[in-house]
Amino acid sequence: MAVEPIERLTRELARLPGIGQKTAQRLAFHILAMDEARVRDLSVAIFNAKKLVHACPVCGNYTDADLCELCADPRRRKDVICVVRDPRDVNAIERMREFHGLYHVLGGVISPMDGVGPDDIRIQELLERVKDGQVKEVILATNPDVEGEATASYISRLLHPLGVKVTRIAHGVPVGGELEYADEITLLRAFQGRREMA
Amino acid sequence: MAVEPIERLTRELARLPGIGQKTAQRLAFHILAMDEARVRDLSVAIFNAKKLVHACPVCGNYTDADLCELCADPRRRKDVICVVRDPRDVNAIERMREFHGLYHVLGGVISPMDGVGPDDIRIQELLERVKDGQVKEVILATNPDVEGEATASYISRLLHPLGVKVTRIAHGVPVGGELEYADEITLLRAFQGRREMA
Repeated sequence: MAVEPIERLTRELARLPGIGQKTAQRLAFHILAMDEARVRDLSVAIFNAKKLVHACPVCGNYTDADLCELCADPRRRKDVICVVRDPRDVNAIERMREFHGLYHVLGGVISPMDGVGPDDIRIQELLERVKDGQVKEVILATNPDVEGEATASYISRLLHPLGVKVTRIAHGVPVGGELEYADEITLLRAFQGRREMA
Repeated sequence: MAVEPIERLTRELARLPGIGQKTAQRLAFHILAMDEARVRDLSVAIFNAKKLVHACPVCGNYTDADLCELCADPRRRKDVICVVRDPRDVNAIERMREFHGLYHVLGGVISPMDGVGPDDIRIQELLERVKDGQVKEVILATNPDVEGEATASYISRLLHPLGVKVTRIAHGVPVGGELEYADEITLLRAFQGRREMA
Protein backbone atom coordinates (compact mmCIF):
# COMPACT_ATOMS: atom_id res chain seq x y z
CA MET A 1 0.00 0.00 0.00
CA ALA A 2 1.64 3.23 -1.11
CA VAL A 3 0.01 6.62 -0.69
CA GLU A 4 2.55 8.79 -2.47
CA PRO A 5 2.36 11.95 -0.30
CA ILE A 6 2.76 9.81 2.85
CA GLU A 7 5.67 7.90 1.33
CA ARG A 8 7.36 11.14 0.33
CA LEU A 9 6.89 12.69 3.78
CA THR A 10 8.25 9.54 5.44
CA ARG A 11 11.25 9.60 3.11
CA GLU A 12 12.01 13.28 3.82
CA LEU A 13 11.67 12.82 7.59
CA ALA A 14 13.92 9.75 7.52
CA ARG A 15 16.71 11.87 6.02
CA LEU A 16 16.92 13.89 9.25
CA PRO A 17 19.63 12.85 11.70
CA GLY A 18 18.60 10.36 14.37
CA ILE A 19 15.28 9.60 12.65
CA GLY A 20 15.05 6.07 11.29
CA GLN A 21 12.45 4.54 9.00
CA LYS A 22 10.09 3.53 11.83
CA THR A 23 10.23 6.90 13.60
CA ALA A 24 9.73 8.70 10.28
CA GLN A 25 6.60 6.67 9.60
CA ARG A 26 5.27 7.29 13.10
CA LEU A 27 5.89 11.03 12.70
CA ALA A 28 4.25 11.05 9.26
CA PHE A 29 1.08 9.48 10.64
CA HIS A 30 1.15 11.88 13.56
CA ILE A 31 1.40 14.83 11.16
CA LEU A 32 -1.57 13.51 9.15
CA ALA A 33 -3.61 13.39 12.35
CA MET A 34 -2.67 16.97 13.37
CA ASP A 35 -4.91 20.01 12.82
CA GLU A 36 -4.42 21.61 9.43
CA ALA A 37 -3.35 24.88 11.10
CA ARG A 38 -0.65 23.15 13.13
CA VAL A 39 0.65 21.31 10.07
CA ARG A 40 0.89 24.63 8.26
CA ASP A 41 2.71 26.17 11.24
CA LEU A 42 5.27 23.36 11.16
CA SER A 43 5.71 23.51 7.39
CA VAL A 44 6.07 27.29 7.39
CA ALA A 45 8.43 27.26 10.39
CA ILE A 46 10.80 24.98 8.48
CA PHE A 47 10.59 27.03 5.31
CA ASN A 48 10.94 30.38 7.08
CA ALA A 49 13.83 29.32 9.30
CA LYS A 50 15.85 28.57 6.17
CA LYS A 51 14.59 31.64 4.29
CA LEU A 52 14.91 34.26 7.03
CA VAL A 53 17.98 33.06 8.89
CA HIS A 54 21.43 33.78 7.50
CA ALA A 55 24.97 34.18 8.78
CA CYS A 56 25.83 37.44 10.58
CA PRO A 57 28.25 39.26 8.21
CA VAL A 58 30.60 39.99 11.14
CA CYS A 59 30.73 36.88 13.31
CA GLY A 60 29.07 34.22 11.15
CA ASN A 61 26.49 33.33 13.80
CA TYR A 62 22.86 32.76 12.75
CA THR A 63 20.61 35.82 12.65
CA ASP A 64 17.48 37.08 10.94
CA ALA A 65 18.64 40.71 11.19
CA ASP A 66 21.44 42.71 9.54
CA LEU A 67 23.76 42.06 12.45
CA CYS A 68 23.33 39.24 14.97
CA GLU A 69 21.98 40.09 18.42
CA LEU A 70 25.41 39.65 20.01
CA CYS A 71 27.39 41.78 17.52
CA ALA A 72 24.69 44.46 17.79
CA ASP A 73 24.69 44.46 21.61
CA PRO A 74 26.63 47.52 22.90
CA ARG A 75 27.14 45.82 26.27
CA ARG A 76 29.32 43.05 24.81
CA ARG A 77 33.08 43.51 25.21
CA LYS A 78 34.70 44.24 21.85
CA ASP A 79 38.24 43.31 22.96
CA VAL A 80 37.80 39.55 23.19
CA ILE A 81 36.63 37.13 20.51
CA CYS A 82 35.72 33.51 21.12
CA VAL A 83 36.28 31.30 18.06
CA VAL A 84 33.93 28.33 17.64
CA ARG A 85 33.10 25.82 14.95
CA ASP A 86 29.38 26.45 14.51
CA PRO A 87 26.37 28.39 15.86
CA ARG A 88 25.44 25.54 18.21
CA ASP A 89 28.66 26.21 20.11
CA VAL A 90 27.69 29.87 20.55
CA ASN A 91 24.48 28.71 22.21
CA ALA A 92 26.39 26.35 24.51
CA ILE A 93 28.81 29.07 25.62
CA GLU A 94 26.02 31.64 26.06
CA ARG A 95 24.23 29.22 28.38
CA MET A 96 27.32 29.42 30.64
CA ARG A 97 26.53 33.18 31.16
CA GLU A 98 30.17 33.92 31.86
CA PHE A 99 31.59 35.10 28.54
CA HIS A 100 30.66 38.65 27.58
CA GLY A 101 32.78 39.20 24.48
CA LEU A 102 32.07 38.58 20.81
CA TYR A 103 32.15 35.39 18.78
CA HIS A 104 33.62 34.23 15.53
CA VAL A 105 31.91 31.23 13.96
CA LEU A 106 34.24 29.36 11.60
CA GLY A 107 31.51 27.34 9.93
CA GLY A 108 33.58 24.18 10.19
CA VAL A 109 37.07 22.97 11.08
CA ILE A 110 40.06 22.10 8.94
CA SER A 111 39.69 18.46 7.93
CA PRO A 112 41.75 17.24 4.97
CA MET A 113 39.89 13.90 5.11
CA ASP A 114 36.63 15.72 4.36
CA GLY A 115 38.28 18.07 1.87
CA VAL A 116 37.94 21.10 4.16
CA GLY A 117 40.98 23.35 3.98
CA PRO A 118 41.79 26.66 5.76
CA ASP A 119 40.20 28.65 2.93
CA ASP A 120 36.90 26.82 3.27
CA ILE A 121 36.21 28.17 6.75
CA ARG A 122 36.06 31.77 8.01
CA ILE A 123 39.70 32.15 9.07
CA GLN A 124 40.50 35.09 6.78
CA GLU A 125 37.48 36.97 8.17
CA LEU A 126 38.84 36.38 11.69
CA LEU A 127 42.23 37.81 10.76
CA GLU A 128 40.56 40.91 9.30
CA ARG A 129 38.62 41.43 12.52
CA VAL A 130 41.78 41.11 14.63
CA LYS A 131 43.74 43.47 12.37
CA ASP A 132 41.22 46.19 13.26
CA GLY A 133 43.24 46.55 16.49
CA GLN A 134 40.37 46.56 19.00
CA VAL A 135 40.81 42.89 19.86
CA LYS A 136 43.16 42.03 22.76
CA GLU A 137 42.42 38.31 23.19
CA VAL A 138 41.22 35.49 20.96
CA ILE A 139 39.90 32.41 22.78
CA LEU A 140 40.06 29.30 20.61
CA ALA A 141 37.07 27.17 21.60
CA THR A 142 36.97 24.58 18.84
CA ASN A 143 36.17 21.05 19.98
CA PRO A 144 38.91 19.07 21.78
CA ASP A 145 39.15 16.52 18.97
CA VAL A 146 41.80 16.03 16.27
CA GLU A 147 40.31 18.51 13.78
CA GLY A 148 39.47 21.04 16.48
CA GLU A 149 43.02 20.92 17.86
CA ALA A 150 44.58 21.18 14.41
CA THR A 151 42.35 24.13 13.53
CA ALA A 152 43.18 25.87 16.82
CA SER A 153 46.94 25.37 16.21
CA TYR A 154 46.67 26.66 12.66
CA ILE A 155 44.75 29.79 13.68
CA SER A 156 47.08 30.38 16.63
CA ARG A 157 50.11 30.49 14.31
CA LEU A 158 48.40 33.07 12.10
CA LEU A 159 47.29 35.24 15.04
CA HIS A 160 50.56 35.46 17.00
CA PRO A 161 52.30 37.82 14.52
CA LEU A 162 49.35 40.21 14.96
CA GLY A 163 50.33 40.76 18.60
CA VAL A 164 47.09 39.48 20.06
CA LYS A 165 46.83 37.19 23.09
CA VAL A 166 45.72 33.73 21.95
CA THR A 167 44.23 31.28 24.46
CA ARG A 168 42.78 27.77 24.25
CA ILE A 169 39.97 26.50 26.48
CA ALA A 170 41.19 24.07 29.14
CA HIS A 171 41.03 20.32 28.73
CA GLY A 172 40.39 18.24 31.81
CA VAL A 173 38.05 15.97 33.65
CA PRO A 174 34.42 17.04 33.13
CA VAL A 175 32.75 18.42 36.26
CA GLY A 176 30.60 15.69 37.78
CA GLY A 177 32.55 13.02 35.88
CA GLU A 178 34.49 10.18 37.47
CA LEU A 179 38.24 9.75 37.15
CA GLU A 180 38.01 6.05 36.42
CA TYR A 181 35.95 6.74 33.30
CA ALA A 182 38.21 9.47 31.95
CA ASP A 183 40.42 8.45 29.02
CA GLU A 184 44.21 8.72 29.36
CA ILE A 185 44.58 11.79 27.16
CA THR A 186 41.95 13.72 29.10
CA LEU A 187 43.57 12.69 32.38
CA LEU A 188 47.01 13.70 31.08
CA ARG A 189 45.64 17.12 30.09
CA ALA A 190 43.99 17.44 33.50
CA PHE A 191 47.34 16.79 35.22
CA GLN A 192 49.25 19.11 32.89
CA GLY A 193 46.71 21.85 33.51
CA ARG A 194 46.64 21.42 37.30
CA ARG A 195 46.47 24.62 39.37
CA GLU A 196 47.58 25.46 42.88
CA MET A 197 44.71 25.54 45.31
CA ALA A 198 44.14 28.50 47.57
CA MET B 1 20.36 34.74 22.20
CA ALA B 2 17.03 34.35 20.45
CA VAL B 3 16.74 34.24 16.66
CA GLU B 4 12.97 34.16 16.31
CA PRO B 5 12.63 31.88 13.23
CA ILE B 6 14.98 29.33 14.88
CA GLU B 7 13.06 29.51 18.16
CA ARG B 8 9.78 29.00 16.38
CA LEU B 9 11.09 26.04 14.38
CA THR B 10 12.50 24.46 17.55
CA ARG B 11 9.15 24.96 19.30
CA GLU B 12 7.17 23.39 16.45
CA LEU B 13 9.53 20.41 16.22
CA ALA B 14 9.40 19.88 19.99
CA ARG B 15 5.61 19.44 19.73
CA LEU B 16 6.09 16.24 17.71
CA PRO B 17 5.89 12.98 19.68
CA GLY B 18 9.19 11.62 20.98
CA ILE B 19 11.07 14.83 20.16
CA GLY B 20 12.28 16.70 23.23
CA GLN B 21 13.73 20.18 23.51
CA LYS B 22 17.31 19.09 22.84
CA THR B 23 16.47 16.95 19.83
CA ALA B 24 14.28 19.72 18.43
CA GLN B 25 17.17 22.18 18.68
CA ARG B 26 19.57 19.72 17.06
CA LEU B 27 17.09 19.15 14.22
CA ALA B 28 16.52 22.90 13.79
CA PHE B 29 20.25 23.53 13.37
CA HIS B 30 20.48 20.58 11.01
CA ILE B 31 17.67 22.04 8.89
CA LEU B 32 19.43 25.43 8.78
CA ALA B 33 22.55 23.68 7.46
CA MET B 34 20.63 21.77 4.76
CA ASP B 35 20.46 22.83 1.08
CA GLU B 36 17.62 25.23 0.38
CA ALA B 37 16.10 22.75 -2.09
CA ARG B 38 16.03 19.98 0.50
CA VAL B 39 14.47 22.27 3.11
CA ARG B 40 11.77 23.17 0.61
CA ASP B 41 11.20 19.46 -0.16
CA LEU B 42 10.71 18.74 3.55
CA SER B 43 8.43 21.73 4.11
CA VAL B 44 6.33 20.94 1.04
CA ALA B 45 6.17 17.21 1.87
CA ILE B 46 4.65 18.07 5.26
CA PHE B 47 2.19 20.55 3.78
CA ASN B 48 1.19 18.30 0.86
CA ALA B 49 0.76 15.16 2.94
CA LYS B 50 -1.89 16.96 4.98
CA LYS B 51 -3.43 18.69 1.93
CA LEU B 52 -3.55 15.74 -0.48
CA VAL B 53 -4.23 12.84 1.86
CA HIS B 54 -7.75 12.21 3.14
CA ALA B 55 -9.82 9.32 4.39
CA CYS B 56 -11.11 6.81 1.81
CA PRO B 57 -14.92 7.33 1.77
CA VAL B 58 -15.47 3.56 1.96
CA CYS B 59 -12.93 2.16 4.42
CA GLY B 60 -11.55 5.27 6.12
CA ASN B 61 -7.94 4.43 5.28
CA TYR B 62 -5.63 7.22 4.09
CA THR B 63 -5.55 7.90 0.35
CA ASP B 64 -4.79 10.68 -2.09
CA ALA B 65 -7.26 9.29 -4.67
CA ASP B 66 -11.08 8.98 -4.77
CA LEU B 67 -10.94 5.45 -3.39
CA CYS B 68 -7.97 3.99 -1.52
CA GLU B 69 -5.69 1.55 -3.33
CA LEU B 70 -7.11 -1.41 -1.43
CA CYS B 71 -10.79 -0.62 -1.97
CA ALA B 72 -10.06 0.02 -5.65
CA ASP B 73 -8.14 -3.25 -6.11
CA PRO B 74 -10.36 -5.82 -7.91
CA ARG B 75 -8.18 -8.67 -6.60
CA ARG B 76 -9.11 -8.02 -2.95
CA ARG B 77 -11.82 -10.30 -1.50
CA LYS B 78 -15.03 -8.35 -0.92
CA ASP B 79 -16.52 -10.87 1.53
CA VAL B 80 -14.25 -10.22 4.49
CA ILE B 81 -13.62 -6.94 6.30
CA CYS B 82 -10.89 -6.40 8.88
CA VAL B 83 -11.77 -3.68 11.41
CA VAL B 84 -8.86 -1.67 12.83
CA ARG B 85 -8.41 1.45 14.89
CA ASP B 86 -6.30 3.54 12.52
CA PRO B 87 -4.40 3.55 9.19
CA ARG B 88 -1.16 2.49 10.90
CA ASP B 89 -2.82 -0.84 11.71
CA VAL B 90 -3.70 -1.35 8.03
CA ASN B 91 0.00 -1.00 7.22
CA ALA B 92 0.94 -3.49 9.95
CA ILE B 93 -1.53 -6.10 8.69
CA GLU B 94 -0.59 -5.55 5.04
CA ARG B 95 3.06 -6.23 5.95
CA MET B 96 1.91 -9.72 7.05
CA ARG B 97 0.90 -10.41 3.38
CA GLU B 98 -1.72 -12.93 4.49
CA PHE B 99 -4.98 -10.98 4.57
CA HIS B 100 -6.53 -10.31 1.17
CA GLY B 101 -9.88 -8.79 2.12
CA LEU B 102 -10.92 -5.20 2.73
CA TYR B 103 -10.46 -2.97 5.76
CA HIS B 104 -12.57 -0.71 7.88
CA VAL B 105 -10.70 1.99 9.77
CA LEU B 106 -12.63 3.15 12.82
CA GLY B 107 -10.55 6.28 13.38
CA GLY B 108 -10.36 5.57 17.11
CA VAL B 109 -11.80 3.30 19.77
CA ILE B 110 -14.59 3.79 22.29
CA SER B 111 -13.07 5.47 25.33
CA PRO B 112 -15.43 7.20 27.77
CA MET B 113 -12.41 8.54 29.69
CA ASP B 114 -11.35 10.48 26.57
CA GLY B 115 -14.92 11.42 25.69
CA VAL B 116 -15.01 9.11 22.65
CA GLY B 117 -18.36 7.39 22.26
CA PRO B 118 -19.65 4.90 19.63
CA ASP B 119 -20.93 7.75 17.46
CA ASP B 120 -17.50 9.40 17.33
CA ILE B 121 -15.91 6.53 15.39
CA ARG B 122 -16.92 4.95 12.08
CA ILE B 123 -19.17 2.16 13.45
CA GLN B 124 -22.33 3.24 11.61
CA GLU B 125 -20.39 3.20 8.33
CA LEU B 126 -19.27 -0.36 9.09
CA LEU B 127 -22.86 -1.48 9.68
CA GLU B 128 -23.91 0.07 6.36
CA ARG B 129 -21.15 -1.83 4.54
CA VAL B 130 -22.17 -5.13 6.15
CA LYS B 131 -25.87 -4.56 5.39
CA ASP B 132 -24.96 -4.56 1.68
CA GLY B 133 -24.96 -8.36 1.99
CA GLN B 134 -21.63 -9.10 0.27
CA VAL B 135 -19.73 -9.43 3.54
CA LYS B 136 -19.51 -12.89 5.13
CA GLU B 137 -16.96 -12.27 7.87
CA VAL B 138 -15.85 -9.29 9.95
CA ILE B 139 -12.49 -9.68 11.71
CA LEU B 140 -12.19 -7.38 14.72
CA ALA B 141 -8.52 -6.40 14.92
CA THR B 142 -8.58 -3.55 17.42
CA ASN B 143 -5.72 -3.54 19.93
CA PRO B 144 -5.80 -6.10 22.77
CA ASP B 145 -6.17 -3.36 25.42
CA VAL B 146 -9.18 -2.28 27.48
CA GLU B 147 -10.59 0.17 24.91
CA GLY B 148 -9.85 -2.16 21.99
CA GLU B 149 -11.62 -5.06 23.71
CA ALA B 150 -14.61 -2.94 24.67
CA THR B 151 -14.90 -1.59 21.14
CA ALA B 152 -14.68 -5.10 19.67
CA SER B 153 -17.42 -6.34 22.05
CA TYR B 154 -19.65 -3.40 21.24
CA ILE B 155 -19.28 -3.84 17.47
CA SER B 156 -19.72 -7.60 17.79
CA ARG B 157 -23.13 -7.15 19.48
CA LEU B 158 -24.28 -4.85 16.66
CA LEU B 159 -23.06 -7.18 13.91
CA HIS B 160 -24.51 -10.51 15.13
CA PRO B 161 -28.14 -9.62 14.27
CA LEU B 162 -26.98 -8.96 10.68
CA GLY B 163 -26.10 -12.66 10.29
CA VAL B 164 -22.43 -12.08 9.58
CA LYS B 165 -19.58 -14.14 11.06
CA VAL B 166 -17.71 -12.05 13.60
CA THR B 167 -14.17 -13.04 14.65
CA ARG B 168 -11.54 -11.57 16.95
CA ILE B 169 -7.80 -11.88 16.38
CA ALA B 170 -6.12 -14.34 18.76
CA HIS B 171 -4.39 -13.28 21.95
CA GLY B 172 -1.33 -15.20 23.05
CA VAL B 173 2.35 -15.25 23.64
CA PRO B 174 4.15 -13.21 20.94
CA VAL B 175 6.27 -15.29 18.58
CA GLY B 176 9.89 -15.05 19.69
CA GLY B 177 8.82 -13.90 23.14
CA GLU B 178 9.64 -15.67 26.38
CA LEU B 179 7.02 -17.19 28.68
CA GLU B 180 8.61 -15.77 31.82
CA TYR B 181 8.14 -12.23 30.54
CA ALA B 182 4.50 -12.66 29.50
CA ASP B 183 1.92 -11.10 31.81
CA GLU B 184 -0.72 -13.33 33.42
CA ILE B 185 -3.60 -12.21 31.22
CA THR B 186 -1.66 -12.89 28.03
CA LEU B 187 -0.63 -16.30 29.36
CA LEU B 188 -4.23 -17.07 30.36
CA ARG B 189 -5.42 -16.18 26.87
CA ALA B 190 -2.64 -18.30 25.38
CA PHE B 191 -3.83 -21.31 27.42
CA GLN B 192 -7.50 -20.69 26.63
CA GLY B 193 -6.69 -20.46 22.94
CA ARG B 194 -4.48 -23.58 22.85
CA ARG B 195 -4.82 -25.86 19.82
CA GLU B 196 -4.19 -29.54 19.29
CA MET B 197 -0.93 -30.25 17.50
CA ALA B 198 -0.83 -32.45 14.44
